[in-house]
Amino acid sequence: MRAAVVGGGVIGGGWAARFLLHGWDVRVFDPHSDAEKRMSEVLDNARRSLPALADVPMPREGKLAFFDNIHEAVTAADWVQESVPEDLALKHAVIAEIEAAAPQETLIGSSTSGFKPSQLQQGASDASRIVVTHPFNPVYLLPLVEVVATPLTPSRHLEKVQKLMTAIGMYPLHVRQEIDAHLADRFLEAVWREALWLIKDDVATTEEVDDAIRFGFGLRWAQMGLFEIFRLAGGEEGMAHFIRQFGPALHWPWTKLTDVPELDESLVAKIASQSDAQSGKHSFRELEAIRDRNLVGILRSLKERDWGAGRTLNAHDRHLRSLSETPVPAGESSAPLRLLELSVLPAWIDYNGHMTEYRYVQVFSDSCEALLRFVGMHDDYVAAGHSWYTVETHTQFFAEAGVDAPLYTTGQVLRADGKRLHVFYRLHTVLDDVLLATLEAMYLHVDSASGKVVTAAREASRALFELAGAHADLPVPKSAGRGVGQRKQD
Amino acid sequence: MRAAVVGGGVIGGGWAARFLLHGWDVRVFDPHSDAEKRMSEVLDNARRSLPALADVPMPREGKLAFFDNIHEAVTAADWVQESVPEDLALKHAVIAEIEAAAPQETLIGSSTSGFKPSQLQQGASDASRIVVTHPFNPVYLLPLVEVVATPLTPSRHLEKVQKLMTAIGMYPLHVRQEIDAHLADRFLEAVWREALWLIKDDVATTEEVDDAIRFGFGLRWAQMGLFEIFRLAGGEEGMAHFIRQFGPALHWPWTKLTDVPELDESLVAKIASQSDAQSGKHSFRELEAIRDRNLVGILRSLKERDWGAGRTLNAHDRHLRSLSETPVPAGESSAPLRLLELSVLPAWIDYNGHMTEYRYVQVFSDSCEALLRFVGMHDDYVAAGHSWYTVETHTQFFAEAGVDAPLYTTGQVLRADGKRLHVFYRLHTVLDDVLLATLEAMYLHVDSASGKVVTAAREASRALFELAGAHADLPVPKSAGRGVGQRKQD
Repeated sequence: MRAAVVGGGVIGGGWAARFLLHGWDVRVFDPHSDAEKRMSEVLDNARRSLPALADVPMPREGKLAFFDNIHEAVTAADWVQESVPEDLALKHAVIAEIEAAAPQETLIGSSTSGFKPSQLQQGASDASRIVVTHPFNPVYLLPLVEVVATPLTPSRHLEKVQKLMTAIGMYPLHVRQEIDAHLADRFLEAVWREALWLIKDDVATTEEVDDAIRFGFGLRWAQMGLFEIFRLAGGEEGMAHFIRQFGPALHWPWTKLTDVPELDESLVAKIASQSDAQSGKHSFRELEAIRDRNLVGILRSLKERDWGAGRTLNAHDRHLRSLSETPVPAGESSAPLRLLELSVLPAWIDYNGHMTEYRYVQVFSDSCEALLRFVGMHDDYVAAGHSWYTVETHTQFFAEAGVDAPLYTTGQVLRADGKRLHVFYRLHTVLDDVLLATLEAMYLHVDSASGKVVTAAREASRALFELAGAHADLPVPKSAGRGVGQRKQD
Repeated sequence: MRAAVVGGGVIGGGWAARFLLHGWDVRVFDPHSDAEKRMSEVLDNARRSLPALADVPMPREGKLAFFDNIHEAVTAADWVQESVPEDLALKHAVIAEIEAAAPQETLIGSSTSGFKPSQLQQGASDASRIVVTHPFNPVYLLPLVEVVATPLTPSRHLEKVQKLMTAIGMYPLHVRQEIDAHLADRFLEAVWREALWLIKDDVATTEEVDDAIRFGFGLRWAQMGLFEIFRLAGGEEGMAHFIRQFGPALHWPWTKLTDVPELDESLVAKIASQSDAQSGKHSFRELEAIRDRNLVGILRSLKERDWGAGRTLNAHDRHLRSLSETPVPAGESSAPLRLLELSVLPAWIDYNGHMTEYRYVQVFSDSCEALLRFVGMHDDYVAAGHSWYTVETHTQFFAEAGVDAPLYTTGQVLRADGKRLHVFYRLHTVLDDVLLATLEAMYLHVDSASGKVVTAAREASRALFELAGAHADLPVPKSAGRGVGQRKQD
């Protein structure tokens, strides 16, 4: 598949990264001389973070190419994403150029945060092709995309857009009536106006505003939202009861919403200097990396709980898994199975400045879960009452890992029968493929209720046995079966 | 310490739970007949979730008692938290009763979301005692508490409040100017008004509004907030550049903020029925449990990254640890050395309901630190540039441990010279002395700067050699030196 990205700033770059990492070829037009450099930086961020959300291998990365004009960029495109500045005349001109060169059946999505699709459709030769697909920064991590159409959009076009967005891991939210700023930005705008007043009137600094959000309701909104959380605030009496209680407050003088602050140079300077005091200790790139690392953590925790955006990620894993023709990722089943991609978190560092001992074991333990998930013996299988219990491990540490080091693990099945599973794991650096540690583990198949060892059903073990068969010819690691003091590197 | 909680609804119950789980005795006054039942439900939620945020043992839970009148509830209280309904006359009456019976030096915090502290102080006999401490639901999990004072509040009172809130794991945000609704609720109010319009005008349903938040900016705000995130939206040109770009949008017709929707019965019914369609498949209690589980996951992921609310949690762990620091137990040196006493934390439990694999290794790793501390080769020794690095371990798992199980570890030195240290650890239950697991480890003595193995100085090794000598006659564990698949219990 081939996507054309017209406009390569923060948003266009994020789109390009999401498409590329999902295996699409991407063709970019951006008139700025530093567009390639900027996009390569966004792409580096995305490569570090988006694959860390998946528990299945991502498709092979697509090809990125830059062009001097819109015409070449959109040629043979299956999708065109427009992300040029918010200027209606400019958008009209760009859309006209796209329409002239892109294949007839190709749809055009605009990243506009403010314009309605009917405004973009004005003067188009085929208005039915033009929709709003409004994403959120960072586009490569946040699943939300607001999809807004008009009465001129046929429903098959709408379905095509939703399907396409889902295929690259997004959550398409169809906005049923076009309005200025769609949905989410109306809330951002409301909070932004209120925050400007608080800064201007010296009620709070930028940092205090941020703290008022991130230590409180921000943590709630990451998982539920406004209404589902309010449903819980009123106690057991229900939603209607709660709203009636809340009603009178609408007429209290709580906000300055009825007025718009003057955003003059002195207010701009005040905000900028407070923001520097708050966040200036981190460079722009550092702060981006921190944001992405946090997003990965939050999204993965929601994924473990199969809730909200985490449920979207789990559905996307299933989608990605269904795409791989061979059941074994990383190509050949006769090689050790590639299990996890990760990077070392700050909390994993010990007083020596290196990844601490038990975090290695945590990574190998996560790798075991990935392996069991791969052979269909995790999640539903555990819920149904069977599980593999670790009875013995042997770990060798060969080299240290520092914070943020990108790592990967592999697993090699040494032996599997219905009762015993013997696996050899390796932890490597991504950059220079240094072997950091190995863990050899023996697991027993257990009935969770009784805690007794029982033989796994033949049908349930099929994928595991296939994997064991594929690994049967691999050389046995030199240290397998050895004890402490008989150290050998594999 | 003793806290009085006046008003035991969702908020008062959350305060009671937070105090109790931090070892305070709590005395409650609430006129409702079902106050005890409701509070016990909140407390159950809190017991399930708050300890799961800690990586150190929580204090022993305090005692909860209910009283028929304010007088008895606030007697001998070290802190009074008022959480009665938002009615100024009622608050004044309740505060007068509290003032009459609580110790003179005891401060009174109000959970009010709307009133300014100067309004609460009207008519008080000692206005300097009354402050706003406005928390967020669920109080036992969310760290934010807005602390608002008036010019009548002495700075030592403000400091006392901030210290007290920090001691129960909260993040006190001092609101520097009192205004209606403090800070966070002004944003909630702005978003709420905007959302009411969207529902009323059929632009979105309650579920679509929630999705527009939780799949997008909600994920950003859980970790940073408005300004730090916007700092990243504008690219590398900086904050002032970004704001100037954003400025003109303030005058676009993006919101209906200038008007207040009529919250009539038909709008109430519409919201309630949409909310039922969205969330009604979960009971109120289920939804609460889901919210708390998600919050624990999000907060723990921020904790691993030592960021925002996660940094608050790490600081709180250090505080709790400083309260419970026990010296290394001496024990007989001719027996395996008793190293750690611990109990299994809720966060250590895996999907099988047992202590998860890598937490065993964490306990053994902590045991190694206790051993090195015992022989004087930790802390200052590490700071001075030398350290023992783990090169190899062999772990055997014999039995499971459930949450709260009291456990202890021992260490037996198998061999120690200036370069190599070989130790065998055992993990036992305290109650019936069951052996749960063993870990055999080999360490090398390393110069931290060069990463090279070097011989430890004779003087520094004296206590270690003495211990090794005392352990020389102990029987060698049967499994020492054995590899995976040669399993033997010692």
